[in-house]
Parts: sequence; structure tokens; C-alpha cells
Amino acid sequence: MKRAGDLELVLGPRPEDVTLQRWLCGELRAAILSGRIPAGQRLPSTRDFARQQGISRGTVVSVYDQLIAEGYLAGATGSGTTVSSSLPIATAAASAARNVPPTLVRLSRQGRLLADSPFLSRDGAVLPRPFSPNQPDLGAFPHTTWHRLSNHHSRSVRPDDMGHGDPAGYLPLRQAIAEHLRYSQRIFCRPEQVMILASAQQALDLCSRLLLDAGDTVLVEDPGYPGAARLFALTGAQVRGMPVDKNGLCTDALPAAPDVRLAYVTAAHQSPLGGTLPLERRLALLAWADACNAMIIEDDYDGEYRFEGAPLPAMKSLDRNGRVIYMGTFSKLLFPSLRIAYVVVPDALADAFASAISLTFRHTPVFQQAVLATFIAEGHFARHLRQMRLLYGERAACFQQECKARLDGLLTVLPITTGLDATALLPEHADDRAMATALVQWGIEARPISFYRMNQPAPAGLVMGFSAFSEESIRRGVAAMVPVLASPRR
Amino acid sequence: MKRAGDLELVLGPRPEDVTLQRWLCGELRAAILSGRIPAGQRLPSTRDFARQQGISRGTVVSVYDQLIAEGYLAGATGSGTTVSSSLPIATAAASAARNVPPTLVRLSRQGRLLADSPFLSRDGAVLPRPFSPNQPDLGAFPHTTWHRLSNHHSRSVRPDDMGHGDPAGYLPLRQAIAEHLRYSQRIFCRPEQVMILASAQQALDLCSRLLLDAGDTVLVEDPGYPGAARLFALTGAQVRGMPVDKNGLCTDALPAAPDVRLAYVTAAHQSPLGGTLPLERRLALLAWADACNAMIIEDDYDGEYRFEGAPLPAMKSLDRNGRVIYMGTFSKLLFPSLRIAYVVVPDALADAFASAISLTFRHTPVFQQAVLATFIAEGHFARHLRQMRLLYGERAACFQQECKARLDGLLTVLPITTGLDATALLPEHADDRAMATALVQWGIEARPISFYRMNQPAPAGLVMGFSAFSEESIRRGVAAMVPVLASPRR
Repeated sequence: MKRAGDLELVLGPRPEDVTLQRWLCGELRAAILSGRIPAGQRLPSTRDFARQQGISRGTVVSVYDQLIAEGYLAGATGSGTTVSSSLPIATAAASAARNVPPTLVRLSRQGRLLADSPFLSRDGAVLPRPFSPNQPDLGAFPHTTWHRLSNHHSRSVRPDDMGHGDPAGYLPLRQAIAEHLRYSQRIFCRPEQVMILASAQQALDLCSRLLLDAGDTVLVEDPGYPGAARLFALTGAQVRGMPVDKNGLCTDALPAAPDVRLAYVTAAHQSPLGGTLPLERRLALLAWADACNAMIIEDDYDGEYRFEGAPLPAMKSLDRNGRVIYMGTFSKLLFPSLRIAYVVVPDALADAFASAISLTFRHTPVFQQAVLATFIAEGHFARHLRQMRLLYGERAACFQQECKARLDGLLTVLPITTGLDATALLPEHADDRAMATALVQWGIEARPISFYRMNQPAPAGLVMGFSAFSEESIRRGVAAMVPVLASPRR
Repeated sequence: MKRAGDLELVLGPRPEDVTLQRWLCGELRAAILSGRIPAGQRLPSTRDFARQQGISRGTVVSVYDQLIAEGYLAGATGSGTTVSSSLPIATAAASAARNVPPTLVRLSRQGRLLADSPFLSRDGAVLPRPFSPNQPDLGAFPHTTWHRLSNHHSRSVRPDDMGHGDPAGYLPLRQAIAEHLRYSQRIFCRPEQVMILASAQQALDLCSRLLLDAGDTVLVEDPGYPGAARLFALTGAQVRGMPVDKNGLCTDALPAAPDVRLAYVTAAHQSPLGGTLPLERRLALLAWADACNAMIIEDDYDGEYRFEGAPLPAMKSLDRNGRVIYMGTFSKLLFPSLRIAYVVVPDALADAFASAISLTFRHTPVFQQAVLATFIAEGHFARHLRQMRLLYGERAACFQQECKARLDGLLTVLPITTGLDATALLPEHADDRAMATALVQWGIEARPISFYRMNQPAPAGLVMGFSAFSEESIRRGVAAMVPVLASPRR
């Protein structure tokens, strides 16, 4: 052990924006933690140290006091200050170990699945390009009205609005949604059955965790939405793809296996093939769920936009035995950054959902919920939906006409009855992934149907959004596709 | 099969707020679904039906058209309309089955644990009563400033701000947090290591899912925060309680078992015993994690409020090998309904966290993140923290003095150095749960230490929040406790 006076303190340079005291503390900590000043070593007196470093003694006293409070140093300032002898400081061997590349963190089985899932979206601040799917027209949103309501709510917030909210959601919003669903989907539910969440993903995740054990089987549409299948797989459940035709899920193929616990269905607008599940299949699916004691998730991601024919009410409206969990989201009806979605759950599951939300999440921000509740209650929501249904209907027709006129024989757009996206078929044996990649180079986005495929056969084709783009953009976009689709290479 | 003319249609009364057409559709659907009008049955012509019901023929045509579109009826209007024969309509036996009480939904193992967890909060709109723990003073929050920033952001939102955001969080907020942590916690991290989430619960849930497999062991403080232990248990991991003393987690007791993957620690302010983990234990815990290849979650829920001595930097600041995940929340620093928390993760885990957030949640609302980023960047956050540190420090001193003056020998308040809550010990062998229940009847909230206990011994005592209450409230609250604590029954 060196005498205090001999201690060599090699201090690094002080950055300009760091105070003398902060810098000196940092240097001493580093020297102690690295073992350069050994445990038990006596430090120079504050007077000597100040003289050596050419700084005021007051600063050194403050530094010593702080490091004593933090546990690096021991002893009162007067009677000599030493480096704490109780610190389990790194030895030379341990210091060497630090130069070994850091051990890779061992992820759990679920963690590896989570880490492997592609980012769904990292480029939020970029406006969508034709024909990105799932895009509402954000420019057509009534910003002024929303801002007025938002400003009003922000101004009138009181301290008792700033505490924790109900995990199941803000009651006036749950009431407004229950009321809306009565008219739009013929779902008669109590507000207590409506659970407010941040997103459809979160809703699927919660359903999955509440209902699925490792080894259970869950049925999904194939081709179908991969984001659902990935979440179900996290539980260790077996995800089985069911065939889909132009009318949606083929209910003839439903298995009667006792380990099937859940079926996931996009009844209003099958993703990606675009069909609407007919009444007889809906009833068959419900009867199947009764027979197997299984549950059904009805994901209604854009079914509110129905352009022709009478609106078909939700499957949930036919659910007499509490088999159906209905999911809706405001991301596509209003705007994605709002982050509000909901599930309507059977009475028997309401408390379980509320508990699960409370433990894993707490609740969705009250402010957005309150603004949205007023937006719905004052009629702005219904008006916006009506206007968007007209606007998107016109754009759907334009997209279909343009494709028919310019891409006849190259791309067959299926009838667009519902939603924000069209499904278009390529000639048999075409490679839809290669086509989508080629289109990107011409500024056109399109999602290949094979992106949605698991094991069942699926036609080659593209899912393309029309709703966020003006008719002029649609015309230019379709024109840009002609040389790519007509190219003999594909 | 009856002839169309003989069909008896017993229709229910029409509610006043339902249109004729909507009501008639509903009645026909119900009659078909219940089997009262059998599959294949021919309906009266629109003319006859209109005459029978005394309504316009146009209404009946619309109703028939809608039910044909929905799949309930078949056939063109002119040539006779029949009930769809393809519908798998309930038979009499199946109808009877409906009267059986609905089958209880089978929850998964994880689902049962989720459903059994008590609601953490359902009464958000009620101001806290003395001495509810974990309560910032919401009345002291700079509402005017927040409203101004909120209003400004709301007004200047453009369509490209309304799409999906980055799952890991809004970059300016991540930068502001990284910058704040550099000064307040001596954590030097890149903004890319900061992940924005809705709550500490969500942060713990994500860590748990990414790191824990069934059968792994996770170490928690005992007594400790039950919300963490419950989340860890969802994965099927074994949750082992570690002893705690007045300085926090007893690192001497750390096991070297190879199946230990994670330790959860409240280093800045042990919940519930109130200690601050000394430097030597922090270093011992880090060395243990290196030796076992385990990770550490450092939950800093209220450590920013330090009333005496130098602020002790986060354990994360000592983490050289990427072992520590640091968690912070704005619920206690600003207000709970904001719903913003964060984790600082080692570089090796940043992509896994972003993927996991994207798949299970998507992202936290951008609006709140943007307002908060400005609030921090403009210095309001640091100013608010300084002011609250002073205010809460005065209240801590007041609470301690009042208890000393009025409850000496009945309740011993441990030194309050950090945070929003005091820990107070009851006489040995007292029943702290019974005491808390008795206090509630006198308008006083206090959380018994046994609420936090698993298997390790813990003293009888109460966790009581002082920070949200004026000195006058504190004096009245302490006075109200005197008769309860002095009662010989307990």
C-alpha cells in the first residue's frame, strides 16, 4: 500500500461542459472501480490534494463528501480518507474478463420468437406511397374538429383526471363504442364488455395469453394475417392454417379435434383474399365452436367501410353462447398514431380481461380516450365514416376501372366490396414476391399474397391499398405498373 | 311446409327509436335464426306482406333485399322469396341447449394467473386519501405549461405525424431521456437503447417474456413489489424471494444456481422497506450476474426524489457488461394518466425489445411522447423535479415530526431519504393487515408490509405516502391515526 503522498492520480482531461467537481468525482470513481486506487488506500488530505491539482480545497472537500456518501470512500474528512475496503472491486483477472466480448444474452423461447419477428413499422413519419395497404387518408381527417376537442379536454383537465384510470377503459368511451356497435354491427353489448386497448396487436396478444396453452391448437385463415399467427405461436400453441376461398374461411374443413381452443377469422373482409364470410358459414363456425368448446376471434379491421350491398352485421351479433371476441381498431377508421383499439368480450371473460390488462399494462391514456369519446358522442365519428365510405368507394371504383383499362389480362382486381385494400390476381404461376419487389423500384407498393401464406395453396396476387390516394395518384400509379406487369421476364 | 299465405309472423312491438325497416329486418332475422320460419319456407309476396302488416310495399322490398344480401333469404323479389335452405339453423335440440348455462370459457394456465391478479386500480377518478402510497401531488403539476405545449402540438400535427410511429419510441423523446439520465443517474446510453412503453408493468412484462422460460428461476426482493413477482410467474418461471434488510437486497444470500436468469431489484428505494442499496452490494450483484450469466432489472420507480445526501447514481451506471435493464416511469414524476415509462436496455437487447414491442403492442401514442419530449427539452421537467424534491422533502420532514410527536412508541418511521413513501414499523408481533383495515375506517390509507411478503421474514409495518398531501392534511391524518394505533385491541 502506498503512502497517501505517493499516490499517483493520473487524471484524464476535463471536458468543457463538465464542472470541476463532477469531473473529479468521475475520475476518482473510475480509478477506484478499475482498481487503480486499491481498496484501503489512504487518499491525500484535502489540503494536499487541492495543492497537487491546483484547485480549491472546498471543491476537494465536496468531492470527498460525495464519494463517502456514495460508498466509494470511507472515514471522516479530518481523520484521513481511505478507499472503502468493503468494495468487491474487480481484480486484474476480472478486469481482463471485461475485454472478452460480452456474453450474448440468453433469450427465452418466447423471446427468440419475439426477437425474430420483423418490425411491423419503423418509418411512421413517411407518407404512404401508392398502393400501400391498410392506409386511411390522413389528409381527409377532420383535424380542426379533433384539435378543438383535444384543446378543450386539455384545458379542462383537473388533478383527479390525472391519476390512474380504469384498466378496462374510460367508461364514456366504452359507452360510446357500445352504442356505435348497436347501430353499425347490430352487436348488443354492455359497456362493461368493451375493453379499451392500444392496438389490435395488443388485443390479439391478450386473447392469446388468456386462452392458449402450449400444445393447444389455434386455427387461422391460410392465407391470412401473419401478425396474428405470430402472436399465437408465442404461447407454444400449434397454429394450423385453414383453407380460404373467395368467400373467406372454408368452414367445411373445420376439424373437430378436442385440442382446438380458438379460431381467428376476418369475417367482414378476409385478409388477404377479400371475401366476406356468408351467413351460412358464420352459423357453421358458431356451431363448430359450441361443439368443440372453442372461442372465435372476429377481427373486424376495416369492415366498417362497405361500398355495395347492405352492410353485413358482425358475426358477434349472432353469438348467443359467448363464443365470439369481436375486435375493432380506430387506426384505420381515424388515424394510427391515436393508438386506440377495443375488444368486445363475452360477459364470462370481462373480469379476466380487466385483470390481465391491469397486470400487464395498466391502461390506455385517458386523454385520448376522452377526446375520442366526445368525438363519437358529438356525431363527428359517424359523419367521418359516412364521408370516408363515399370517398373510398369512389377511389375503389377508380382503381378498378384503371386496372381494367390498362392491365387487362395482366392483373385481375377482385370485386371491391369492403375495406381499404383491393385484392388483385396475377396470372397463374406468377411469382408475386418478385413482382412486388420489381414494383417497388418503380415507386409502387404492393403486398404479395404469398406474404400471407402458411401451408395451404393460395393464388399469386397482390394486396393493394387505394384509400389513401387521390384519383390522380391512382391513375399515375396504375400507369406506372404497366411496364412492370407487361415485362416478359415475370 | 306451410304455404306462404298461411305463414304466421308474430312480430314483437317496435321500439320508438328504431326505424320500421330496421325493426322488420330484426324480427325476420330472429324468426329465421330461431327456426320459427323454417329453411326453405316461401315468404309472402312483398305486396301481401305489406298489406298484412299495414306498411308500404317499398319498405318490404327494401327489407327483403337486405336479407337476401345478408344471406337469410334467397330468390329474386319477383319470383318468390324463400328462407335460405343452406343455413345450418338451430334444430329444436340445439335451441334447448341454449338454455343450458353457458359453458365456462377454459382459460390457459397463464390466463388463470392473469384473471386471478387483483385489479391494481379501478378508481382512477378519485383523489388519493392520506396516506396512499405512490402518489405524486397532481395539484402541483404545471398544468398551464403542459396545456400550452399540448395545444401547440395538437395544432401543428400534420398528416405524416398521424401514421404509425417507431415501436421503440419517438426519437426526440428517447434523446431527451438519454440526456436526462446522463445528468441525473450518470447513465451514459445511446437514445437507441431507450425503449418507450406505457408503464412499468408493461416493461416488466416484456423483460419477463424476453428472458424467462418455464422452469427458470428469477430472484425478487422479499418483501418486495408483488406486481413484479406476479408478472414473472406468468412465464412459468420459479420466483424466489431473497431476504432484504434496511439497506435493501442482501447480496450475501445470492445463489449461484445455473438456472437463475434474472434478478429484480429496487436499488434506489427498496419497496417496501425503504433502503438504498449500498455501493458494495451493487458491485456484488453485478459480479454475481457476470458469474451466472444472469440479467438484472433495476426498477427506479421514485429514486429521482432524493432528499438528503448526494444523489446516488443508478446501478446501471456501473454496468460494464450489459447486465442491467434500467426502468423508469413518468407516472410518479409527472402524472399517472400520461402513460409513459421507459427501459434502458443493453445494446445486445435493443433490437429484440423493438421487435417485441412491435409485435405485441405496436407503439405508445406519438402525441404524448412529443409533448413530453418538448417538456423535457425546454427545461420544465428538470424544474418540476427540483420543485417537487423541495416540496416532498418538506412533507417528508413534517410527516416524520408529526409521527414522532404523536405516535412515539406506537409507530417508528424509518429515515426518509428517497421517494414518495415512508416506511413505518409497528411494534413486534403486531398484525399490520388488521391495522391497515382499521385505519381505513378512520379515513387513513396505509399498505401493510405483509402485503409485500412472500416467504422471508419481514417486520410488521406500514407503507405510507406523504408526497400528495399538504402539511395540514398530514397533521390531521397523523392525528386521526392516534386512537387506532393506541387501541389496546391491536
